[in-house]
Amino acid sequence: MSVPLPPGSTVGILGSGQLGRMLAMAAARIGLKTHIYCPDSGPAFDVAAKATKGSFSDAKALAQFASEVQVVTYEFENVSSETARLLAPHVTLRPSPRALEVAQDRLLEKTFISDLGFPVAPFRAVSGVSDLEQARQDLGPTAILKTRRLGYDGKGQVRLGASGDAASAWATVGKAPSILEGMVAFEREVSVLVVRAVDGGLAYYDIPANTHAGGILRRSEVPCGLPEADLARARQIAAGVANALDYVGVLAVEMFHLGARVPLEQRLLVNEIAPRVHNSGHWTLEACGISQFENHIRAVAGWPLGSTRRHADAVMLNLIGAEANAWEKLAADDGACLHLYGKNEARDGRKMGHVTYLMPLTA
Amino acid sequence: MSVPLPPGSTVGILGSGQLGRMLAMAAARIGLKTHIYCPDSGPAFDVAAKATKGSFSDAKALAQFASEVQVVTYEFENVSSETARLLAPHVTLRPSPRALEVAQDRLLEKTFISDLGFPVAPFRAVSGVSDLEQARQDLGPTAILKTRRLGYDGKGQVRLGASGDAASAWATVGKAPSILEGMVAFEREVSVLVVRAVDGGLAYYDIPANTHAGGILRRSEVPCGLPEADLARARQIAAGVANALDYVGVLAVEMFHLGARVPLEQRLLVNEIAPRVHNSGHWTLEACGISQFENHIRAVAGWPLGSTRRHADAVMLNLIGAEANAWEKLAADDGACLHLYGKNEARDGRKMGHVTYLMPLTA
Repeated sequence: MSVPLPPGSTVGILGSGQLGRMLAMAAARIGLKTHIYCPDSGPAFDVAAKATKGSFSDAKALAQFASEVQVVTYEFENVSSETARLLAPHVTLRPSPRALEVAQDRLLEKTFISDLGFPVAPFRAVSGVSDLEQARQDLGPTAILKTRRLGYDGKGQVRLGASGDAASAWATVGKAPSILEGMVAFEREVSVLVVRAVDGGLAYYDIPANTHAGGILRRSEVPCGLPEADLARARQIAAGVANALDYVGVLAVEMFHLGARVPLEQRLLVNEIAPRVHNSGHWTLEACGISQFENHIRAVAGWPLGSTRRHADAVMLNLIGAEANAWEKLAADDGACLHLYGKNEARDGRKMGHVTYLMPLTA
Repeated sequence: MSVPLPPGSTVGILGSGQLGRMLAMAAARIGLKTHIYCPDSGPAFDVAAKATKGSFSDAKALAQFASEVQVVTYEFENVSSETARLLAPHVTLRPSPRALEVAQDRLLEKTFISDLGFPVAPFRAVSGVSDLEQARQDLGPTAILKTRRLGYDGKGQVRLGASGDAASAWATVGKAPSILEGMVAFEREVSVLVVRAVDGGLAYYDIPANTHAGGILRRSEVPCGLPEADLARARQIAAGVANALDYVGVLAVEMFHLGARVPLEQRLLVNEIAPRVHNSGHWTLEACGISQFENHIRAVAGWPLGSTRRHADAVMLNLIGAEANAWEKLAADDGACLHLYGKNEARDGRKMGHVTYLMPLTA
């Protein structure tokens, strides 16, 4: 498709969470309808023109969904290759299945990025205890064992210390195909939100600094404080990845910054990529004229990209679990832009909303 | 109700146009659901958790709607007193029916504002040709005859020149109860967007300068260029009106500015009030952290008001009728934030969307 989808067209979205919800509202802003497809109803159902509850392996329901939309995108990277294959005869999927394939498999992802010439943490493929023992010899005893694929009954990863036992670590990850990743002494975590149009045109949001706790993003802040040369290098890496995937939409590339003592070419190391809009870009809703959500929709709909210009400094804080119970206090906070996702239960570790604080533009 | 509606509650909205659409999205942002009620489907249906097609005089359907929502608001001021009366036993209507009553009747509106001590254009009630002739003697031959109520088959108003014939003007307005309004030589049109909370707290957006053509708003711009004393006077008038109505929500007060030669107390004259979010406040979506739409929802839901602070200068241009056909060009305009309302037909005079341009903050 080389012509943009006209207003009134429908964008199909796989997944009904908060990212789908914000994508649906961004689509509505520019006159596009959305149709959410998900096994379970969720926050996105409340703001979409249509929503279908269906299994991601239901060929008939997916074909019906595909027939009612003009393009399909997704809010999460674990869309299975089966789902992609079932949709493919009927409708264009953007970003393409190739991006899903790479992002879903930690070994494939690290190899792909490394082959592009960009630094990643040292890693080894692990298919058994003997692999793991060899890998620890190569990378040092302190390392993280991660399953290649996510969502393995919460047995996704385990940190090995000097005294860690390989056999028990291997059992902890469910004996699933994995990688061992060497520890990286980074100074700062940043992410590049790059958006790539159908014609290959690229745009970048300003790069936030991110803070995680317990594996969950807590805070993103722009500007991140890195010098321009480092920012340019980060953009160069993200562009390289996006171009190599012939990507369409917003791609988030999470990176570790190793500090100014490390040579520029080695200073930024790719941690992981997310082929979708990203939590570290939520501040774009207020601090930019066109948010990451709208630019993702624009890209997948074949539209020209909108400006990624930022007109305010911003700090975004996630509201995790019971933190969202403070909504009344947050609503009364003069500087806070409050977002609540409409989830019923404030379960532990669940992203319930976020708050963005805007400040005058400094850089 | 003195406690705010908790997230997950449902706000009912009468009307399915673009204002209802932007209200629904603002509600979703803070975790509130919306239920649209309107005789016809429209732009708001695509972004609401629920929508009901029903007549504004259908007692049963209105009662059912009222039973499913926790508060009702509206996107247009011509909600009939009958509709308000049918809803009243079941649910709170905000703003109150009193605001509707005043805003719907030009004679009542002008009298109300005048009685508060605020200037309005000179006017006379007109119930027949002899009234009209007397009124022209009082106000001068050049004046505008307007029906007291809107929507009278397009026969809403007629301009009388020096040679105008009273009998034919009276026929043109369908012999409906009317007012004759004297011409006012104003320098500038502005509007105050004031938001009033359930507890009586007030907040003001910065005051835009507005440009109309053919009775339709074309352009709003902030800042409007008036000195602070004039802005303070404008806010004082808007506050006086909002307080006198015990208003809840966003109230738009359109004013004429007569120029610096006129004494400050007489310099700003109220043209009309709109008891709802207003087209001249659409720029708040991008130029403020909390838009007029969210603050209206916050007020009617009993929430604390959000900050009305503006972090960018802005110009908003309406896209009327076929102007929206240029969407592809507008989408490619680097400085434009494009909004399309999802209306199918680009009829003449129909508001199809708007564009906001942001610029660095100057004042």
